[in-house]
Amino acid sequence: MADTIFKKIIDGTIPCHRVFEDDKVLAFLDINPLSHGHTLVIPKEEAERLEQLSDESAAAIGRLLPRLCRAVMKATGATDYNVLQNNGAPAHQVIMHVHFHIIPKYADGSGLGIDWPARPIDQQKAAHLAKAIAENV
Amino acid sequence: MADTIFKKIIDGTIPCHRVFEDDKVLAFLDINPLSHGHTLVIPKEEAERLEQLSDESAAAIGRLLPRLCRAVMKATGATDYNVLQNNGAPAHQVIMHVHFHIIPKYADGSGLGIDWPARPIDQQKAAHLAKAIAENV
Repeated sequence: MADTIFKKIIDGTIPCHRVFEDDKVLAFLDINPLSHGHTLVIPKEEAERLEQLSDESAAAIGRLLPRLCRAVMKATGATDYNVLQNNGAPAHQVIMHVHFHIIPKYADGSGLGIDWPARPIDQQKAAHLAKAIAENV
Repeated sequence: MADTIFKKIIDGTIPCHRVFEDDKVLAFLDINPLSHGHTLVIPKEEAERLEQLSDESAAAIGRLLPRLCRAVMKATGATDYNVLQNNGAPAHQVIMHVHFHIIPKYADGSGLGIDWPARPIDQQKAAHLAKAIAENV
């Protein structure tokens, strides 16, 4: 895997606006934010996609998310927000190193724009699908 | 907090298409999916929003996400996906109990629709903002 810009930020060869760092996780401002306070949370472990990340790094990020969200909301005054993590270019992943976005949503509409074309599930097919997923967990 | 539909699913008074359960976490199919395999991952702990969730429950969900994503992708054949967690009605939260969406993204476009009106950050303001967030972590 070629070094991504996030690997270079972790290594310190590219600067960032850091908000938090420990041995497993780094958090910093997105330099192309969707809204004021848009923050990225990344594992120091090199993994392109979430399904490739170790349980330990994923748990470390999970544990920190509530605390980081509180800090972003307190510093910005935002009350609503989205946490988003994209995997694969068709799903809007641009940097090929796992990252969680914390994106404040403001009354002026700034923040993540979401289209939600949901449709009711077919209950019989759903029972079959749930079984298939459960067997793969 | 009034009982949400997710609390009733956890309690077993409303059924779900379950894909995983342990002492802290429950995962099941969204009955109004954005795409085939759209799965919800929720803490059993009652918390309305991510910033209110305990570190322990958040870590438990974080640790499980890679494993659950692998299972959803394997069972559906999808390769790309988004993980999304919404907080507050303006940020598209509908059920007031913390939940992470795993949403497969398919070549036909089905899945999460995202609008990404990003703009470059003001570097001086960013340095100030990062400091303000860091002081609140």
